[in-house]
Amino acid sequence: MNRELAEAPIGVFDSGVGGLTVAREIMRNLPAEHIVYFGDTARLPYGSKSRETILMFSRQIIRFLKTQQVKAIVAACNTASAFALDEISKESDLPMIGVVKPGAQVAAQTTVNGRIGVIGTEGTVGSHFYREFIQDIAPAITVIEKACPLFVPLVEERWIHDTITHQVAERYLSELKEQQVDTLVLGCTHYPLLRSVIGEVMGESVTLVNPAYETAQELKRMLKAKDLANPGSDEKEFPYRFFVSDLAEKFKVFANSILPYDVGMTQKIDIEEY
Amino acid sequence: MNRELAEAPIGVFDSGVGGLTVAREIMRNLPAEHIVYFGDTARLPYGSKSRETILMFSRQIIRFLKTQQVKAIVAACNTASAFALDEISKESDLPMIGVVKPGAQVAAQTTVNGRIGVIGTEGTVGSHFYREFIQDIAPAITVIEKACPLFVPLVEERWIHDTITHQVAERYLSELKEQQVDTLVLGCTHYPLLRSVIGEVMGESVTLVNPAYETAQELKRMLKAKDLANPGSDEKEFPYRFFVSDLAEKFKVFANSILPYDVGMTQKIDIEEY
Repeated sequence: MNRELAEAPIGVFDSGVGGLTVAREIMRNLPAEHIVYFGDTARLPYGSKSRETILMFSRQIIRFLKTQQVKAIVAACNTASAFALDEISKESDLPMIGVVKPGAQVAAQTTVNGRIGVIGTEGTVGSHFYREFIQDIAPAITVIEKACPLFVPLVEERWIHDTITHQVAERYLSELKEQQVDTLVLGCTHYPLLRSVIGEVMGESVTLVNPAYETAQELKRMLKAKDLANPGSDEKEFPYRFFVSDLAEKFKVFANSILPYDVGMTQKIDIEEY
Repeated sequence: MNRELAEAPIGVFDSGVGGLTVAREIMRNLPAEHIVYFGDTARLPYGSKSRETILMFSRQIIRFLKTQQVKAIVAACNTASAFALDEISKESDLPMIGVVKPGAQVAAQTTVNGRIGVIGTEGTVGSHFYREFIQDIAPAITVIEKACPLFVPLVEERWIHDTITHQVAERYLSELKEQQVDTLVLGCTHYPLLRSVIGEVMGESVTLVNPAYETAQELKRMLKAKDLANPGSDEKEFPYRFFVSDLAEKFKVFANSILPYDVGMTQKIDIEEY
């Protein structure tokens, strides 16, 4: 093992705060790892933008994360995972994983009746990447996709346990209930924060798959396989650093509301320079 | 009058489709004018971004609009009007107007009880520009501001006449009703599309001010004063051109749903090159 390399941080990026649910799972499940997080708050959301634009944004972010000497990269954004990961993986030696594949794999393993629902932004749903990955594993599975564009602004309003959010969820999810899915992929990084409302609406018989958690598990396996897992260092410094392209203060407030640690400093950078 | 200059188009820009409500008022009220519209769909929304970022985006857009030989510019976006207009006006000889000042002026003239409500995005409301402009005109007026971040995604879902939208409006507007405003400024370009729901919730005694309409009137006065009004040309070509930074097709569909003309071609450009 190259100890210096193994002690390097994981680069995690997202269009904004949503990827923090992925960072949170990495913190919980891989406590020895350091993280450099980048949230592209100047250009969010990614869900409504084209593949070409997301690819350009992702390349800039990878160039920035490389300046932070990361040992691996997690695209903690469904849209970037779906639109850009295959392409940018080819352009770099750094190991990279996204949130789509690990979520798709677990969903395919979980379903009993062969009917899986996927909810996400318009970009994720329109790309059909979850469906493609799931059907690559098990072609007979039926995948029903549904875009839920109001869920992200509802989370950002913090109307988390709320009658309006419940009604919006009822409307968005009714089709998936009628289609009798037994497994539902939370295909947007904000959605785990609505887990209780979504669970109530879908009912106990439906298993919710959280790709953020599955991604942390996949990262653990990948680091072990490549002999890149951090053996734990003696450093006392705070192991997480946060960068954004805009509104560092606002990001910090949201981050502190969902992470088990105080985020400390968040630094704003000009991502278009990379 | 310099006829060639007078026949030049008006440059209208917004973060996306919202500014089309302003373009629509210009089409209705100044039918002889040509328009070059730019929607920054790759980087929307502007409402949640910082002044510095909005200023950088606006400068790029002005540089692009100048390549289209516009004779005047309308910032058809409340956030850009509030954050960038004063600064970019100083940097250019082109006459420029925004949507904030005309809306503020009419609101100040309209109120009888001296209590005005302003609704908009977090960016617009947080900037307090409507309040500042209104109190510059009439310092004794009380201005009550309220951010309504769910209104834009509700419009984009086209849940325009909808029980959920009605409940969201009830929640957002209850404070303004309690405060007994008699005038309400629709301080986001999407909001005129929710005019009927907002009107129902506020009641008949409250006058809704639509800055899009007031901006078209202000533009008419400005063009006349500067001898820049288009005398009408014999050209038979379609007088409106549309440019976006992403997803031209999706823009076109939305534009066609709210404009009285078929938009025809929408062209995608790389705004970061300007």
